[in-house]
Amino acid sequence: MSQIRHALDVKREDDFAKWYQEVISAADLAEESGVRGCMVIKPWGYGIWERIQRLMDDRIKAAGVSNCYFPLFIPLANFTREAEHVEGFAKEMAVVTHHRLISDGKGGLIPDPEAKLEEPLVVRPTSETIIGDAMARWVQSWRDLPLLTNQWANVVRWEMRTRMFLRTSEFLWQEGHTAHETREDALAETHRALEMYRACAEDDLALPVIAGEKPENERFPGAVETWSIEAMMQDGKALQAGTSHYLGTNFAHAAGIQYQDREGSQQYCHTTSWGVSTRLIGGVIMTHGDDDGLRVPPKIAPYQVVILPRLTGKGDDDLLLSKAEFLASLLRTYSVFDEKVRVFVDKSTAKFAPKNWDWIRKGVPLILHIGPRDIAGAVVPYVRRDQLWNVDVYGEYDGMIQYNQFQETDFSSVPSILEQIQQGLFEDARTRRDANITRGVAQWQAVVDHFEKGGKFPGWVEVEWAKPTGAALDAVVEKLKAVKLTIRNVPRGSEPAGGTCIFTGEPAVERILVARAY
Amino acid sequence: MSQIRHALDVKREDDFAKWYQEVISAADLAEESGVRGCMVIKPWGYGIWERIQRLMDDRIKAAGVSNCYFPLFIPLANFTREAEHVEGFAKEMAVVTHHRLISDGKGGLIPDPEAKLEEPLVVRPTSETIIGDAMARWVQSWRDLPLLTNQWANVVRWEMRTRMFLRTSEFLWQEGHTAHETREDALAETHRALEMYRACAEDDLALPVIAGEKPENERFPGAVETWSIEAMMQDGKALQAGTSHYLGTNFAHAAGIQYQDREGSQQYCHTTSWGVSTRLIGGVIMTHGDDDGLRVPPKIAPYQVVILPRLTGKGDDDLLLSKAEFLASLLRTYSVFDEKVRVFVDKSTAKFAPKNWDWIRKGVPLILHIGPRDIAGAVVPYVRRDQLWNVDVYGEYDGMIQYNQFQETDFSSVPSILEQIQQGLFEDARTRRDANITRGVAQWQAVVDHFEKGGKFPGWVEVEWAKPTGAALDAVVEKLKAVKLTIRNVPRGSEPAGGTCIFTGEPAVERILVARAY
Repeated sequence: MSQIRHALDVKREDDFAKWYQEVISAADLAEESGVRGCMVIKPWGYGIWERIQRLMDDRIKAAGVSNCYFPLFIPLANFTREAEHVEGFAKEMAVVTHHRLISDGKGGLIPDPEAKLEEPLVVRPTSETIIGDAMARWVQSWRDLPLLTNQWANVVRWEMRTRMFLRTSEFLWQEGHTAHETREDALAETHRALEMYRACAEDDLALPVIAGEKPENERFPGAVETWSIEAMMQDGKALQAGTSHYLGTNFAHAAGIQYQDREGSQQYCHTTSWGVSTRLIGGVIMTHGDDDGLRVPPKIAPYQVVILPRLTGKGDDDLLLSKAEFLASLLRTYSVFDEKVRVFVDKSTAKFAPKNWDWIRKGVPLILHIGPRDIAGAVVPYVRRDQLWNVDVYGEYDGMIQYNQFQETDFSSVPSILEQIQQGLFEDARTRRDANITRGVAQWQAVVDHFEKGGKFPGWVEVEWAKPTGAALDAVVEKLKAVKLTIRNVPRGSEPAGGTCIFTGEPAVERILVARAY
Repeated sequence: MSQIRHALDVKREDDFAKWYQEVISAADLAEESGVRGCMVIKPWGYGIWERIQRLMDDRIKAAGVSNCYFPLFIPLANFTREAEHVEGFAKEMAVVTHHRLISDGKGGLIPDPEAKLEEPLVVRPTSETIIGDAMARWVQSWRDLPLLTNQWANVVRWEMRTRMFLRTSEFLWQEGHTAHETREDALAETHRALEMYRACAEDDLALPVIAGEKPENERFPGAVETWSIEAMMQDGKALQAGTSHYLGTNFAHAAGIQYQDREGSQQYCHTTSWGVSTRLIGGVIMTHGDDDGLRVPPKIAPYQVVILPRLTGKGDDDLLLSKAEFLASLLRTYSVFDEKVRVFVDKSTAKFAPKNWDWIRKGVPLILHIGPRDIAGAVVPYVRRDQLWNVDVYGEYDGMIQYNQFQETDFSSVPSILEQIQQGLFEDARTRRDANITRGVAQWQAVVDHFEKGGKFPGWVEVEWAKPTGAALDAVVEKLKAVKLTIRNVPRGSEPAGGTCIFTGEPAVERILVARAY
């Protein structure tokens, strides 16, 4: 029996939703702001976002995409141009109607009736329509294509039920928007972005994902094709972690994005858009968190190593701090993942044990301890966050923190330890994900039973279907909805279907993943 | 007589305001968006902003300040708490009153009357009040202090007259917000931020600035002290390029930011805030631009070197491109300002001469030309943007572009050339600035004459004053306003005043800079 007294009050298996909130609080990632649906992202959470931004931005730039910045406000008229886009987005948005406040005569303020806007402005929920206006100005000839732009920005979608990082009214994201000569070029860009997201999720965030096409009912409003990467959380639910859309010429027609082709005639551009958001941090928490808090993959950890001197408030403190700074300097001479090792010396005056647990809950990959006995010594004890608990000679946890040590202040193994942690988090998540995808289910009732009676965290089920459209698809969606299921995507490169559609009994044409989802 | 045919249609000396717009357009920095008061920042302009962000962010992090993210929306009630802050900010702001749109039955959309917010939300014009709420939650004890936070964000101030980069309704900035135990600590932070801004402006942007305290009438609403850095544009006007505020305990009282001090009693924190914005790009344009477009200081240039192959659309193009890529790889092995040299190979199919002029107008520091004759050769011709025009044997411009060349593809001098350009732009601007500050003016009429009759670009005047307050200060401000002048600041470390106040005739107590300003 495990002797472990974990750092969190809630365990994943007892109440996953509550555990999620607890990690956010215990790792000091974010908190409710008091403004409806908006959160405050705190330093450790924002530091992780900055790392994700940096790595994703490098990938975006390497693909020749240029960052720009477009207005926060979108005129109402822009939304009425693309019919499906209106339907999908025009519902829950923040609407600016006034540009001035005046005193209400009772010590408060009210919107000044004299300062009502002629046309209300919408706070951008996404920027296809406003960037479309710019593309129409920028594109004249095929020589201007492809036009590859991206922006890092905040967007607002008025959400009724919010959950930190996963669904908030305001969130941070990047949105890529590109225009091309042909359908083929635009589809290639849609897939390039999808593959970039897969690579960033798996290689940088250690999130194993399945890339595939969303079914018609899950398409972005106005898109011809929507592709996604889907990650499995530890409760078996799916998280859509990024999307890439081929928009055909729909938005080009709406905004007038035309070019003179190589033969001299006017054509509409084929456009794409693609985005990932702070939602990725929710995915990192629910994939790598454990009952002691978060575990941050080293590539996206704001600090990869924290040095914690055992300060006592007495005479040795100066010596401890200078030793800690010396070790930090040594560590910073090493590189991993093509960057210098990121080291932080915690000089705060709080007590040692709570500080140590704070860093464990925050999930910093390596914590080095420097005590009075270590000042003269050439050995540096450390804790690996991914191997936190000691295993005794019987192969069982004995409830003690596992200590390792660097010899002779030789830190040359630090890069490979960080690489191991990065790789290990990914492998663990992939093994768990693969073990929780059930394949070969050929009867609808078996699907229902799997999710209703298949244990607490039933994972995903792969089934074959006939890819119905219109009313037939609506019926499938309703059937799934009745048992709280959704179609995640049609995995890219999956084996051809050979059986019958689990919904209609017709010959199946492809395989889909069915799951509960965030 | 100059033979030069410059790249822009407007010269600085002919119409500075028009020239400014022309540079923005010719260097492809930004454009009007069609949304009132909002601009689109295009790749070259945004690339410069990304460089400024990176360098400033490094300085902010080095000072131990943590980045966070706070909500875009601020409840109305927050603005009513701090009396002066309401007066200063509550006037022109974007107000969100509805959270849903519905069809107007005529193909358009209107705010849904059923979805009116109970309390309107303001799009942040600055975040003291919302960050104050967070500080009140985060600070309990003196051990939590100092609390040092910063955010990179967009803000909105509804401006009646807008000008790109200098005054737009939406703009991008960073805002630092800190809380401290004592007045001394908060003042030290106010000055640390001010000094950081001076260093970044001068060392990174090559903008010479004068740091000093703003007079009472120019203080940030709610501040006890406001300090600024002021830069002189080429038309002699002043640009406030960054501000740092000591807020006393005003915002702490308004938001309830209290801590238990070392003796166990409750105290209000002393807070600061400080910010710089995309306005800095306007300062770079008006300081370093010339009649051929922009000149970007190498430290903030998205590309420091552009390699331009003379593509012809014929057989040699592949060879030219591979030579260009080879030279780019060679150049990237060099570092300058502690970063790898940033190199771009322009592979676009446009004609050579217009492409060359595009890069000149954009102000890239070095442009390398690779033509068919250079493929086999070991000599690489280049153009230095800061020494664009050839000087003949008589020391006059002969109207030709000045070519230099690297020998044997030895690029080891590139770092020092880039350093020279950086330093040269700064020295030129400082010399011009210093030559245009008139000191020792002791009569009000002489000040008026200086600005009314002192030539097109009269610069700044330093005068002594008695630092009047209240109604006496109002009278001074009105007197200055009548001749379109403002007090810029009281320069830090200037010599003591020894004469009489130019406005009141009383004994002077300090020196102030008086100027026309953006």
